[in-house]
Amino acid sequence: MDGLMMHRPLLQSGLLDFAAESFPEARIVSRRVEGDLHRQSWAQTRARAVQLSFALEGWGVAPGDRVATLAWNGHRHLEIYHAVPSIGAVCHTINPRLSADQMVFIAHHAGDRLLFTDLSFVPLLEKLQDRLPPMRYVVMTDAAHMPQTTLDALCYEDLLAGQPTDRVWPDLPETTASGLCYTSGTTGDPKGVLYSHRSNMLHALATAAVLGPDLGPQPRILPVVPLFHVNAWGLPFTAPLIGASLIMPGPALDGASLWDLCQAEGVESAWGVPTIWQGLFAEIQSRGAKPANLRHIVVGGSAMPRSLTEGFERLGIDVNHAWGMTETSPLGSQGSLTPAQRDLPFDRRMALKQAQGRRVFGVEMKIVDDAGTRQPHDGQAMGELFVRGNTVAAGYHDNAGATARAIDADGWFGTGDIASISADGILTLRDRAKDLIKSGGEWISSIDVENLAVAHPDVAQCAVIALPHPKWDERPLLVIKPKGAARPGLEEMRSHLGAHLASWQLPDDVVYVDEMPLTATGKISKLTLREQFRDHVLPDLRGQAAD
Amino acid sequence: MDGLMMHRPLLQSGLLDFAAESFPEARIVSRRVEGDLHRQSWAQTRARAVQLSFALEGWGVAPGDRVATLAWNGHRHLEIYHAVPSIGAVCHTINPRLSADQMVFIAHHAGDRLLFTDLSFVPLLEKLQDRLPPMRYVVMTDAAHMPQTTLDALCYEDLLAGQPTDRVWPDLPETTASGLCYTSGTTGDPKGVLYSHRSNMLHALATAAVLGPDLGPQPRILPVVPLFHVNAWGLPFTAPLIGASLIMPGPALDGASLWDLCQAEGVESAWGVPTIWQGLFAEIQSRGAKPANLRHIVVGGSAMPRSLTEGFERLGIDVNHAWGMTETSPLGSQGSLTPAQRDLPFDRRMALKQAQGRRVFGVEMKIVDDAGTRQPHDGQAMGELFVRGNTVAAGYHDNAGATARAIDADGWFGTGDIASISADGILTLRDRAKDLIKSGGEWISSIDVENLAVAHPDVAQCAVIALPHPKWDERPLLVIKPKGAARPGLEEMRSHLGAHLASWQLPDDVVYVDEMPLTATGKISKLTLREQFRDHVLPDLRGQAAD
Ligand SMILES: Nc1ncnc2c1ncn2[C@@H]1O[C@H](COP(=O)(O)OP(=O)(O)OP(=O)(O)O)[C@@H](O)[C@H]1O
Ligand SMILES: Nc1ncnc2c1ncn2[C@@H]1O[C@H](COP(=O)(O)OP(=O)(O)OP(=O)(O)O)[C@@H](O)[C@H]1O
Ligand SMILES: [Mg+2]
Ligand SMILES: [Mg+2]
Repeated sequence: MDGLMMHRPLLQSGLLDFAAESFPEARIVSRRVEGDLHRQSWAQTRARAVQLSFALEGWGVAPGDRVATLAWNGHRHLEIYHAVPSIGAVCHTINPRLSADQMVFIAHHAGDRLLFTDLSFVPLLEKLQDRLPPMRYVVMTDAAHMPQTTLDALCYEDLLAGQPTDRVWPDLPETTASGLCYTSGTTGDPKGVLYSHRSNMLHALATAAVLGPDLGPQPRILPVVPLFHVNAWGLPFTAPLIGASLIMPGPALDGASLWDLCQAEGVESAWGVPTIWQGLFAEIQSRGAKPANLRHIVVGGSAMPRSLTEGFERLGIDVNHAWGMTETSPLGSQGSLTPAQRDLPFDRRMALKQAQGRRVFGVEMKIVDDAGTRQPHDGQAMGELFVRGNTVAAGYHDNAGATARAIDADGWFGTGDIASISADGILTLRDRAKDLIKSGGEWISSIDVENLAVAHPDVAQCAVIALPHPKWDERPLLVIKPKGAARPGLEEMRSHLGAHLASWQLPDDVVYVDEMPLTATGKISKLTLREQFRDHVLPDLRGQAAD
Repeated sequence: MDGLMMHRPLLQSGLLDFAAESFPEARIVSRRVEGDLHRQSWAQTRARAVQLSFALEGWGVAPGDRVATLAWNGHRHLEIYHAVPSIGAVCHTINPRLSADQMVFIAHHAGDRLLFTDLSFVPLLEKLQDRLPPMRYVVMTDAAHMPQTTLDALCYEDLLAGQPTDRVWPDLPETTASGLCYTSGTTGDPKGVLYSHRSNMLHALATAAVLGPDLGPQPRILPVVPLFHVNAWGLPFTAPLIGASLIMPGPALDGASLWDLCQAEGVESAWGVPTIWQGLFAEIQSRGAKPANLRHIVVGGSAMPRSLTEGFERLGIDVNHAWGMTETSPLGSQGSLTPAQRDLPFDRRMALKQAQGRRVFGVEMKIVDDAGTRQPHDGQAMGELFVRGNTVAAGYHDNAGATARAIDADGWFGTGDIASISADGILTLRDRAKDLIKSGGEWISSIDVENLAVAHPDVAQCAVIALPHPKWDERPLLVIKPKGAARPGLEEMRSHLGAHLASWQLPDDVVYVDEMPLTATGKISKLTLREQFRDHVLPDLRGQAAD
């Protein structure tokens, strides 16, 4: 028996209509590449997105066409985010931190026919244009700032000028593709995830449901997470739903710039990866104060070091440690504490915040062993994490091989992350499948060792990688970026770690780097480190090597 | 181009699974008909709903079957709410405050084949059983409290005993019917609204998105709104999504009982119709204190008198004035203030709270004149309110006539409410189409007059109804339930109202009642008042009558 309720497609265009009408006070504040600080309301954002949509249609952009962006966080990028899908086209965000080869690969793979670019990337595109598919470019600026360029390029503000500012958006099936994003390429070639209106809308609703109570009414949010990767964790869609203000930092992501922007704009909640918070925290320490209104941080993308969480929490900033991936829209779990957990002593709270939190409504989770057998949710058993839900990719765009490897027989998506889940649903990531270290038949979790090592006072950042070993198969090498001049030695680190780890889990050697190599989304690149230390010889093998 | 995301049906069964795993601390606290105060977790609620689902299937309840309830707010009612739809059957809640004739009509119209009843209603059902469709009854109690009865009745706890406590819920299309509820019968015969899993899930998500920030993390909520009407404003579905505790008052809805329950259980947010808050407010005044943790009230179903809103607000209780109807699941608009509005002076805030707030995400609104022409959203123009959205009824169950009258050519639902909408989306109900008073070609809004009249110190409750008039067509009669012994007279009331209304809008006469007649959902029944004062002669017509 069917219900007798209306059926309206869940469309992203409904979000702008809602915010424009309901939240006259919220502002999109953008630190622009041109240098100024620009403000507009949701109603203005909608009017400009409408203008852009007419310009796109006038230009022949049709439903299903891929429209690419190469841009920082700013209002124009947000307008493209809403205009493109609202007329049935697909917004393909390109991560400018990918290598040139990867960008060229992605643009061809996606079949982009139009590219919106920030001023910053015009020189890069000029160099790449012969390798990119034939397309037209729009420079996201006004006539006064339009550069001399060899690109076949239009000016964004010229496109909008004179177009009507209101429209009734077209009806589309809710399963229509709305966005395309490639994974970070941390473990290999980037793979494309094709979001739909339905998946993005349900992601926005679920995000609001789980984070709304901590964010409070119409929060002022700083998305440091880029619009160019996984929809800035969905904020372009969650913000108009909850009437948030978005404070867009543009390209200035260093600690000092972020501190100033947060302070000036009264940012309450800031979202980004751990490396960003490292920069902001150093700035807070050097200035001796946090930005006045900052009270909430959402962090994910890689594991948040406990010491950093503790630093923010001591300042009264609630750190919400979330997990997700391109393939999960991305929010899969989040670490908002329950009322009883909020009353726990500091140490126990911080231990909880090391974990990646509880699943977001709509995302189902299972952990399985190599044979695909479900493991118990007892906080102990480890296994590969599989997920299922409306916000999870059913496969990769035009990549049958990767799709077949990712989806299991029951239709669940294999994340490649190794995790345990407690009886009350708390997810703890132990490692990535490719980063786990197998020593004498036992697994060593690189995340566990890293979390402990980074708490050492002389360690700024660290990573644990596996080196091959004739007897144990693999043994851990600890790579350290020191905080200052002091370089904590192997014995020092082993005794520091020994309080919490078994002796066979301790690293066999320590090496030092001046800078950690980062991936396109600001994660430590273990691929690069493995390459870099491929020929490193562990102490217990040095004699043999000399023999 | 289609997105490449998983498609999982939006099913209510997912809510219990989620809450059972994610919110170990939340409790369903029930003041039971048997007299005790019962507590259980969401995990226990799920386990018991699973047991019930097996019992129902074992008994032959099949997908599409209607299963009725006649019960107060309590954990067993909540278990039925989740068990019945989770196996594809339809939970039909019957409002015990309807007249016997209406109940009989509804049970036949719905085609109920099984009825769950609280102990309270066994005597009523014994009397009615010969007029009801042939069905079996389940008394919602344990063996020890099972009454002697002429009904063909089973005992609820016996049904559950021994059944398995875990299951994987069946997959169903998300458009499957999940619930059936008839309108209050305020304006005529009750009409059935058939909710779907999709509509209830999207309602829960939207409710969480708009109310979550004010409710805070895992709030303790008192649903005074009954599970037997419009899903207690969706709380059975929103609560497991946000990890709320539900404090279920059972049949004890007087001010003193509610005060005690709120105080004992630390209720933070309480939801109900204005008549309930009148009772609680009187109790707060007589005790000289509010229940300690109460800080939030959601009120709707009929207009909240400003004086009552002000009373609560002065105690630091945030009054959220919502609008909705059976046909809108029910939340259509809600009055959560924006940050800037929160900073306004008391008087301006209270004026805002007289309005019914902004539309909930997913509900579209238009106001139209008699010819169906859209009226501007300028806060001035009035028209019949039409709505559209996934949570809005597409028609009435098995009632083609009422469906045709309700749905316009473009597929919008006509609410029968007369409203204006401001430029920033704030809805103000001016009247019901059937309650408007047409005097000399101009409309008088009965709601406006009532809101002002109830602010008079001697007035406890009031209602304005139309009496026929040979010259003006209709003129308003003010019906007053006085607070104490004083009976404010016509001149007194006209001068009180005259400060805000034009003289032609003032009532022509005042009459007094000891008790206001209430409808099945606790609204003042104007149908009954019109009946009661049908023969009342207005002062300016008395001479003529005597002539
Ligand atoms: N809170 C977290 N703690 C630890 N790891 C995390 C966390 N959040 C995300 N991750 C890691 O990031 C991954 C998702 O990142 P993303 O989708 O950006 O691409 P990637 O996996 O880094 O790149 P690729 O899939 O191309 O190798 C997760 O699978 C997980 O390994
Ligand atoms: N906040 C409010 N202020 C004023 N009126 C309200 C408010 N909320 C709801 N209402 C009234 O209640 C109506 C919905 O009530 P409900 O669905 O319970 O049945 P009913 O309309 O009273 O009964 P019936 O439709 O059978 O006549 C709305 O159409 C509106 O007239
Ligand atoms: Mg990945
Ligand atoms: Mg009605």
